[in-house]
Amino acid sequence: MYRSLIRNSARQLASARPIAARRFAAHATPQPFNWEDPLNAQSLLTEEELAISETAEAYCQERMLPRVLDAYRTEHFDKKILEEMGELGFLGATINGYGCAGVSNVASGLITKAVERVDSGYRSGMSVQSSLVMGGIDEFGTQEQKEKFLPGMAKGKIVGAFGLTEPNHGSDPGAMETTAKPHPTKEGYLSLSGSKTWITNSPIADVLLVWAKHHETGKIRGYLVERSECPPGTLETPAIKNKNGLRASLTGMIQLDECPVPEANMFPDVEGLRGPFTCLNSARYGIAWGITGALEDCISRARTYALDRKQFKGNPIAKYQLVQKKLADATTDAAFGTLACVQVGRLKDNGEAAPEMISMIKRQNCDRALWNARTLQEIFGGNAVSDEYGIGRHVANLFVTQTYEGQSDIHSLILGRAITGIQAFV
Amino acid sequence: MYRSLIRNSARQLASARPIAARRFAAHATPQPFNWEDPLNAQSLLTEEELAISETAEAYCQERMLPRVLDAYRTEHFDKKILEEMGELGFLGATINGYGCAGVSNVASGLITKAVERVDSGYRSGMSVQSSLVMGGIDEFGTQEQKEKFLPGMAKGKIVGAFGLTEPNHGSDPGAMETTAKPHPTKEGYLSLSGSKTWITNSPIADVLLVWAKHHETGKIRGYLVERSECPPGTLETPAIKNKNGLRASLTGMIQLDECPVPEANMFPDVEGLRGPFTCLNSARYGIAWGITGALEDCISRARTYALDRKQFKGNPIAKYQLVQKKLADATTDAAFGTLACVQVGRLKDNGEAAPEMISMIKRQNCDRALWNARTLQEIFGGNAVSDEYGIGRHVANLFVTQTYEGQSDIHSLILGRAITGIQAFV
Amino acid sequence: MYRSLIRNSARQLASARPIAARRFAAHATPQPFNWEDPLNAQSLLTEEELAISETAEAYCQERMLPRVLDAYRTEHFDKKILEEMGELGFLGATINGYGCAGVSNVASGLITKAVERVDSGYRSGMSVQSSLVMGGIDEFGTQEQKEKFLPGMAKGKIVGAFGLTEPNHGSDPGAMETTAKPHPTKEGYLSLSGSKTWITNSPIADVLLVWAKHHETGKIRGYLVERSECPPGTLETPAIKNKNGLRASLTGMIQLDECPVPEANMFPDVEGLRGPFTCLNSARYGIAWGITGALEDCISRARTYALDRKQFKGNPIAKYQLVQKKLADATTDAAFGTLACVQVGRLKDNGEAAPEMISMIKRQNCDRALWNARTLQEIFGGNAVSDEYGIGRHVANLFVTQTYEGQSDIHSLILGRAITGIQAFV
Amino acid sequence: MYRSLIRNSARQLASARPIAARRFAAHATPQPFNWEDPLNAQSLLTEEELAISETAEAYCQERMLPRVLDAYRTEHFDKKILEEMGELGFLGATINGYGCAGVSNVASGLITKAVERVDSGYRSGMSVQSSLVMGGIDEFGTQEQKEKFLPGMAKGKIVGAFGLTEPNHGSDPGAMETTAKPHPTKEGYLSLSGSKTWITNSPIADVLLVWAKHHETGKIRGYLVERSECPPGTLETPAIKNKNGLRASLTGMIQLDECPVPEANMFPDVEGLRGPFTCLNSARYGIAWGITGALEDCISRARTYALDRKQFKGNPIAKYQLVQKKLADATTDAAFGTLACVQVGRLKDNGEAAPEMISMIKRQNCDRALWNARTLQEIFGGNAVSDEYGIGRHVANLFVTQTYEGQSDIHSLILGRAITGIQAFV
Repeated sequence: MYRSLIRNSARQLASARPIAARRFAAHATPQPFNWEDPLNAQSLLTEEELAISETAEAYCQERMLPRVLDAYRTEHFDKKILEEMGELGFLGATINGYGCAGVSNVASGLITKAVERVDSGYRSGMSVQSSLVMGGIDEFGTQEQKEKFLPGMAKGKIVGAFGLTEPNHGSDPGAMETTAKPHPTKEGYLSLSGSKTWITNSPIADVLLVWAKHHETGKIRGYLVERSECPPGTLETPAIKNKNGLRASLTGMIQLDECPVPEANMFPDVEGLRGPFTCLNSARYGIAWGITGALEDCISRARTYALDRKQFKGNPIAKYQLVQKKLADATTDAAFGTLACVQVGRLKDNGEAAPEMISMIKRQNCDRALWNARTLQEIFGGNAVSDEYGIGRHVANLFVTQTYEGQSDIHSLILGRAITGIQAFV
Repeated sequence: MYRSLIRNSARQLASARPIAARRFAAHATPQPFNWEDPLNAQSLLTEEELAISETAEAYCQERMLPRVLDAYRTEHFDKKILEEMGELGFLGATINGYGCAGVSNVASGLITKAVERVDSGYRSGMSVQSSLVMGGIDEFGTQEQKEKFLPGMAKGKIVGAFGLTEPNHGSDPGAMETTAKPHPTKEGYLSLSGSKTWITNSPIADVLLVWAKHHETGKIRGYLVERSECPPGTLETPAIKNKNGLRASLTGMIQLDECPVPEANMFPDVEGLRGPFTCLNSARYGIAWGITGALEDCISRARTYALDRKQFKGNPIAKYQLVQKKLADATTDAAFGTLACVQVGRLKDNGEAAPEMISMIKRQNCDRALWNARTLQEIFGGNAVSDEYGIGRHVANLFVTQTYEGQSDIHSLILGRAITGIQAFV
Repeated sequence: MYRSLIRNSARQLASARPIAARRFAAHATPQPFNWEDPLNAQSLLTEEELAISETAEAYCQERMLPRVLDAYRTEHFDKKILEEMGELGFLGATINGYGCAGVSNVASGLITKAVERVDSGYRSGMSVQSSLVMGGIDEFGTQEQKEKFLPGMAKGKIVGAFGLTEPNHGSDPGAMETTAKPHPTKEGYLSLSGSKTWITNSPIADVLLVWAKHHETGKIRGYLVERSECPPGTLETPAIKNKNGLRASLTGMIQLDECPVPEANMFPDVEGLRGPFTCLNSARYGIAWGITGALEDCISRARTYALDRKQFKGNPIAKYQLVQKKLADATTDAAFGTLACVQVGRLKDNGEAAPEMISMIKRQNCDRALWNARTLQEIFGGNAVSDEYGIGRHVANLFVTQTYEGQSDIHSLILGRAITGIQAFV
Repeated sequence: MYRSLIRNSARQLASARPIAARRFAAHATPQPFNWEDPLNAQSLLTEEELAISETAEAYCQERMLPRVLDAYRTEHFDKKILEEMGELGFLGATINGYGCAGVSNVASGLITKAVERVDSGYRSGMSVQSSLVMGGIDEFGTQEQKEKFLPGMAKGKIVGAFGLTEPNHGSDPGAMETTAKPHPTKEGYLSLSGSKTWITNSPIADVLLVWAKHHETGKIRGYLVERSECPPGTLETPAIKNKNGLRASLTGMIQLDECPVPEANMFPDVEGLRGPFTCLNSARYGIAWGITGALEDCISRARTYALDRKQFKGNPIAKYQLVQKKLADATTDAAFGTLACVQVGRLKDNGEAAPEMISMIKRQNCDRALWNARTLQEIFGGNAVSDEYGIGRHVANLFVTQTYEGQSDIHSLILGRAITGIQAFV
């Protein structure tokens, strides 16, 4: 009873296409292996996507890379970079209209990867702008909000920040304390009070998407706070300095003290954690892509070093088994991670990506990138301590990517819940 | 200069398809997550492949699974299983003609996965028949050899074995000692002498593809040794018992003592390690697929146990964080590994798969399956020691899959060589 | 203000002993490194302990080792081994009087290590007899109970078993269901009913220390059930076969169906989990020691194999970096684990060992022994599947040691509670 | 024949001391567990050692800790710290005479641990002064050299540096290129030329112990280069800035250009790598101790954070299983590592420590400290990126300790050679 099916399909297949001949002919000339794309993920891309990827990589390597070492040392973020990204169509790239590029989620992932190949901090700045703020507005905003903010943000002229995490509420944003009450004096305005922390871009942001509990429902709502409209003393965004990682991105707090926000700046329909989680989901998707870029850069740097560095009878250290294993491990994880990103991107384009899929690729890709980057760093021996080799910067950055937008353990529990049907957060 | 490209492609894309609307509509109804196929690899399969997979899974669960516990305990291999596989078209499934199914490499992988979901030993028996022997004959054999052996092997009536590894030469088959000399008495015959070990199916094999060094060239050539034609004392295939794993498959030696083999049974053209390595490459591809089936079975068994088993205030242990993390890790690796298999299968169909790609997925999938199976086994606590739960059997099997057809470290060095251009075997 | 102290002590030390001269003289002739005792733990042992260790090792290697392969294959436990151990003073070795040896806890650990160097199953049989049952009687029994059971148990003539774990209650024994009620017909007797599982030695035990909830208090009490006194049908101890590990030890259930036990066979004072946990603590201490023996045997076997096995240009595989790293890792963990055992043994002799210390060394030594044994097993390549090499048996056994007497995760939570003051079991 | 021994020893022991009574009495009052010293390593210390440890810890916490955050941020090393250490007797503490404290190797280790509990950079500065330079002079110097340098170095008035590693020769110092030739113009002087890098303290060092190949023998010899005596342009010691770790210590190069060094400043007898390796061995012993201090500080900081930080229904995150496991793992490794240090210290005092023992504890303690510090860092979530929590600094430092004075893989191969008798460096 099992039999007919396979025979049938076999027959169909056999009649339809002479695979075997082609296949075995191909065997005769073994295919080359490309360590930079070991499982040929390129074969899954459209021509447009390939073109976008090439452009993005060229820009990032030629224009961004030369700036990053100094930026990291001095914790400086060059705001011009957002404008350059805007010119190239990187910002809000999946959005249709409003001057956005309207590309596929895979293309967007490739852009993200190109940026993070240079530095996770630059990618963070872009992610916040694109996924968290522009994505949020496009998804949940009114037509007026979209038209007001998206075109300028797409150009990188208006800088966005996303205020969810609070000093006492990281993994558990539902317990946030920031509130939106009726403004005591200004008609048609709400008054926002509370404190947000670890907010990328906040010190330079023009528009801050702040999540706060609405006075009537106690439910979380999203508010677009425009810095230029805030009276003195109602909005402060002090920078947080002396960071251990992501030093090429700006991080700060958002301190709201009875800050007046027009009711028209509230997202109209979305309530509860669905709003911020949808935005985060999109950003996490970008992180999963991005960090494969950082990992690939670590591989490339470690490989070059291992080929150049000679120890013991003039052998390049690339000849030693313990070194080769590190390279093999990292290359494998980069290749597997990339395929997973492409797959989720395709599903996302079709509206078929479950949020847990994104938890899965964000968690795994970040964990593996970090683990491998650290292992590759060992190849540099004592030289790893010099920031000139770049790998220490990636290691420090990647630790942060593992902890933000869902710390790795939190994503483990999200997956555990999806697998077992039981939550284990508490 | 970077700019136009993206804008162009964006324009093209925007005009071509209204993705965004569809995408965001989809957001409104979040997609479900399926722990059995977390990244929706099914979406990558053709209808034929899905149908083949369903048939194979049904047969394996209904017909093979009930036999495995006893087979494993007693180290017994039911030869009838090969015939059943033959009836279903599992054997040599990618070969065109000769009664073979001629399916895609992905379909073949799905069959392999279904079999190994039950037991790696059954899959080993099938792999040897299909990939190593039938594949070898189809690739390198003469037309006469193909017509003589393939139809019977496809039916499972003729059982094959593959003799490469020798007692003193495992990872380094190029140093093999088995030789093929002119037969002292039989004209047109070669005389094979030497010893092969860890040969799956050898005790019951009808035809043994033996690799031996040719007396004239010193190069490795392939010979089809037919048991029925061997004079007494020239071919012995003693079984190796008391194995730690793969106990549902038969393993033995091949001892050749001036065994006469007609010259017509030699592969005509292929010389050196290219012959056996091509066969192994194909088998390794099957292993990479197969063990994701074993891992998925471990996940399923551990999940069920964790939901059923209650400890501490009546909580199912699935509620505990340390348990959920194990499930999340395993599920992730299974999902990533499956995507990599699909990708390499597609490339293989197009003649674009490099051997190192197969080293990569064989190594990674085996390593991760073993690691995760062991970790999942911890969930069973003391009960894991009982063979009724099945997971201990998978763990023992998976260790063997990690060591055969290229021990994990050897594949690391194959990858290391491909990445660096330098060999580190010695 | 900090200063004087060091100067003072320095002065004292300088006057007290001319260390430096001796030390630097010693430098001139570098000390040898002994891979079998890398950190010279021997230097911490008394002469008696060294002598005991040598005797135990000699007996185990000469008399026990030759029996283990067959025992493991056939799941047979030779009861005579307990008698031999009894003759040598291995049983209840730390107990004073009753024919027991009365040795230090370190000496006892060394005996345990010698036994487990051969097989964890043999050590399990001994641990149950010594630590769980004899130790329990010596600690909690009445004088009459001690005199009745201990001398025969010390000789290995009376075999003990320890019944705590139940089919539905493993990590959480406080929820046990076995009860002790007044016997309906026999005056002065309690009636025990319930079911225990995974009980080492149960099928051959003469006396079974069963923990059950007392009808009056609901609290757990200990009862010495004598098989010879049990009416037919009230005590069954069916063996559990087809185990994945510990196959050289006997395992079974204890099924009590209104089994009459004289009140005089109840432990007089101890109530609640303190009783069984004290016994387990002592057994766990033995496991921590024992598995270092198993690990050392794995190291020795892997080292020998790596030196004998030649691959690639005739090099012993011991020459390869990836092999050496595995040996270095394992040797380090064995050395560190041994020092920890000696330290806890000394503290135990002085009544200064906290139970959490034993959780720490049991967990760590089991986890590391298992991890390293698995890694060393990789050195054997395909040959690892043969049980003749012995390492597969250790790997299978060590997995069980990780899960019994406190699964590794449970000990993590015991330690976590001790470190944080907060319990995380539920 | 095995029997008598144990019985005898048992008898002796039984007569000698009534252990059991004491032991079981102790059981009645279970001992407390101290997470800061889980296996009671304190019980192994002498009173003097305890006193020294307390003094050192008090100084480091009260005087050094307040300076480290700023020092790390600004890559500034306060030279006064060496003088303070000198006043307290920390420098060259195991040396007898010359104003040194002459304490045991364990006491010296405790001092090192106290310093590295604050920062690995401070410990590095001290190690170079004490172990590498003072230790080298004391071991290999002439009486005149000792009297000239040691008293001032013990006070911290003369700062030392140790020049072994060269830009192209790290793990393989035997291939060094620095040479000592007869000085072309200055009688009785040698002329040193070459370049050393990653030299701790070099920018401020007064005396630099430089290893160079002697022109006559081609063998490596040690030379004491006094900065004050070097003509302009013959000695440069530029600082290396922008380090990824150890930023509280000074690092630089040593550039020698025909630098004249009096023959009297050459170590008289020692030739080849034995000289620098003896010094390194002593320093590595200190590192093994020191990093347990850094790890313990990470544990303490993570524990405090986990108890203070509340997420999900107001629970401190210390309540979550995934957090407790991290704390349990780290605490275990710190405890095991400390015992190993004490043991090797005692053996060192007796001239019984093999160099491979030090490779073992240096490698293991560094590897485990780094792994655990990174894992503990995850507990801090996003807050880990702030340098105020201190743990990121330890993580960055510990990576360097893993790579210097023998990168971890090199020590693996040193151990592998000691275990197998075969070198695998090339």
